[in-house]
Amino acid sequence: MEQRVSLITLGVRDLRRARSFYEALGWRGQEVEETVFFQAGGLGLVLWGRDKLAADCGLPDTGPVNGFGGIALAHNVRSPDEVDALLMTAEQAGATITKPAATSQFGFYSGAFTDPDGHAWEVAHNPGFGLAADGSLTIPDFGTG
Amino acid sequence: MEQRVSLITLGVRDLRRARSFYEALGWRGQEVEETVFFQAGGLGLVLWGRDKLAADCGLPDTGPVNGFGGIALAHNVRSPDEVDALLMTAEQAGATITKPAATSQFGFYSGAFTDPDGHAWEVAHNPGFGLAADGSLTIPDFGTG
Repeated sequence: MEQRVSLITLGVRDLRRARSFYEALGWRGQEVEETVFFQAGGLGLVLWGRDKLAADCGLPDTGPVNGFGGIALAHNVRSPDEVDALLMTAEQAGATITKPAATSQFGFYSGAFTDPDGHAWEVAHNPGFGLAADGSLTIPDFGTG
Repeated sequence: MEQRVSLITLGVRDLRRARSFYEALGWRGQEVEETVFFQAGGLGLVLWGRDKLAADCGLPDTGPVNGFGGIALAHNVRSPDEVDALLMTAEQAGATITKPAATSQFGFYSGAFTDPDGHAWEVAHNPGFGLAADGSLTIPDFGTG
């Protein structure tokens, strides 16, 4: 197995609502067969019916989103001001701010929101994690192996 | 907001167990402050305590994983044989095969497993989704906008 992720698929209750939310954040995608595909750097972020995704994974869909789904996506930005601005944009787009921006125990500035289906996104300015011009992120060498 | 994902963080119950699982799949990462970081192309895949991740997102942790968490990660490969081989490797590493490999309704060959914390991974050979030498994936132009 190569060390990479090809697609992140978010199970959604209402595809139109979900697509509108990400479009309000500035994302642009393509819809085909009741599925929305966003190119996100070297991978694809996909919106698809939660019931269909659960079935496709061979997993029972345990019903309405209830609390924490166990995964968080992070979007790193280039300044603390960008963190504040993006959280404001997300809230205006219909997100729930679950953690107002603050300096974390690890010394970087971040906040968090959930999208309309409860998927968690963290927004962070972390100078220790290099962010290339194309947005790709490089984990620093912690020297711990 | 730029159209990209910086980190995917999987909340785990037992960091050692989770790291061992991904290492058995061939991944190599770094552990720092009870967190494991894997460089995965232009983003980072992170293993972190589920309770800490939930708190960091400002979300209640609803307890043990129960069914479908609402997100699936996909790992696309270059042949149907690679799908079979990876599912076998994953099972040997401790994964639960939740969907044996089969040709899907969309015409591509895929299967799915969950990692020890119940996170869903799909393994697919889908010739319609271009896979570059570096493993980055390109969503095809569906012509639907």
